[in-house]
Amino acid sequence: MKKSLGAHTLVYPTPVFIIGSYDHNDKPNAMTVAWGGICCSKPPCVTISLRKATYTYANIMLKKAYTVNIPSEKFMKEADYFGIASGRNEDKFQKTGLTPVRSSLVDAPYIEEFPFVLECRCIHTFEIGLHTQFIGEILDIKIDPALLDQADKPDIHKINPFIYDPGSGNYFSIGPQLARSFSIGQEISREE
Amino acid sequence: MKKSLGAHTLVYPTPVFIIGSYDHNDKPNAMTVAWGGICCSKPPCVTISLRKATYTYANIMLKKAYTVNIPSEKFMKEADYFGIASGRNEDKFQKTGLTPVRSSLVDAPYIEEFPFVLECRCIHTFEIGLHTQFIGEILDIKIDPALLDQADKPDIHKINPFIYDPGSGNYFSIGPQLARSFSIGQEISREE
Repeated sequence: MKKSLGAHTLVYPTPVFIIGSYDHNDKPNAMTVAWGGICCSKPPCVTISLRKATYTYANIMLKKAYTVNIPSEKFMKEADYFGIASGRNEDKFQKTGLTPVRSSLVDAPYIEEFPFVLECRCIHTFEIGLHTQFIGEILDIKIDPALLDQADKPDIHKINPFIYDPGSGNYFSIGPQLARSFSIGQEISREE
Repeated sequence: MKKSLGAHTLVYPTPVFIIGSYDHNDKPNAMTVAWGGICCSKPPCVTISLRKATYTYANIMLKKAYTVNIPSEKFMKEADYFGIASGRNEDKFQKTGLTPVRSSLVDAPYIEEFPFVLECRCIHTFEIGLHTQFIGEILDIKIDPALLDQADKPDIHKINPFIYDPGSGNYFSIGPQLARSFSIGQEISREE
């Protein structure tokens, strides 16, 4: 018998996405969001949700572009800071010493030091309630080449991302590989 | 200097959500999705994306309701199977021996054996391309009471969810706790 917890924003896993955007003066900003994920395969799209009060909300509304930067554990402190401070009051790149790089594909900056970056053109917005949902078409992914495996594919443990737990308010690492998808379940398919 | 990988649906982390729904005969179905996540705090909402061809797509369009069931590692084989087979051809609950329970809040079943469940009323759909996005208002969360910590909060390691890596096609576990959010970044805030 399950216990009711009420209506909460709690699911596993929850990401730590750092959103790169430019303001009206082309000042780069970075903001941490935990609400988001891939939302379409063709065209490849990623969704993020933002409160209207954020500096990044106005930036994306203006520029119709953003980047999703995945921090490695090494940059956990910076990632957390990006979610605490507002670009309205602070230059977060100056404060962290991280480097904004202008995307050649969209009107948004990405973070040079972060291992993995999605460059997105905003193709849709939807007002849900406290949060507005943005859908961004992924035009390119950029990765630090040292983080590719021998087959030239991104290696999750080399990228070393981490997750957010909205329940406890803590960050957690990615653990060991468990099994292959579209594979271990076939045992059940074959049973008669 | 970063390397370009092209436009792909790859981000970290990516979830393993099992979607519970009823068909037109009230037959329960379960389907695995990897595209989704929380998308609004008030009202609390979770988004999932589905291809039109899926059995679950038609079910949710009909019933305007779904559940998001989080599998523990123990049910990795069943979770993988739910993503391989179609409810159009198989009774996935019968095949796995798992128990569908009718939600008292929405017209959808949840999986009794799974540790953590969101009961959702579908409040919006949006056609992106290959995938259609559904936004569900979370009306309640149900949890196995043994998985709460001493403060009666969900314990991520007791729930023991796992993640999907679309790059390698493998499942990974959740690793150790790293740090507290809205906390370790304050060090940077305080620096002058």
